[in-house]
Amino acid sequence: MTPFEIDLLGYCAATLTTISFVPQAWLTWKTRSAHGVSLGMYAIFISGVAGWLGYGILIASTPVIVANAITLALALFILVMKLRFG
Amino acid sequence: MTPFEIDLLGYCAATLTTISFVPQAWLTWKTRSAHGVSLGMYAIFISGVAGWLGYGILIASTPVIVANAITLALALFILVMKLRFG
Repeated sequence: MTPFEIDLLGYCAATLTTISFVPQAWLTWKTRSAHGVSLGMYAIFISGVAGWLGYGILIASTPVIVANAITLALALFILVMKLRFG
Repeated sequence: MTPFEIDLLGYCAATLTTISFVPQAWLTWKTRSAHGVSLGMYAIFISGVAGWLGYGILIASTPVIVANAITLALALFILVMKLRFG
């Protein structure tokens, strides 16, 4: 596979894992509630995604950087909603 | 940073994002129920994780491979529980 095709696979993977995260963010926004979301789990998850973002920058993998930047933004949004609305 | 330190960051990130996934798998196993889990979302997520696994192999990133292999196993387990117990 060419580097372009490898990146394309990375972007497909990034799109799918990020899309699967959107319904949670949307539900949290619509219901103004994040009752089913564990605060501890989210704190760990957000630390992990931040770590992946740093790792992606260090190995210069654009798909890893883009995927984790978007996921980090969505996860931080859900965390803020959780802290505001409980 | 040395390649070893970069890999170490990747493994830390992998450990954190995988750990944050375990409570869902555990809750699903304990309650024999995956009521709060959307089937469509899981199908998309699993496709994405499988894509990341392929991408990790192609860019030869061991942290990406290990993280996504474990996440894929956990997500498939939750999916099977969902299909069996609803």
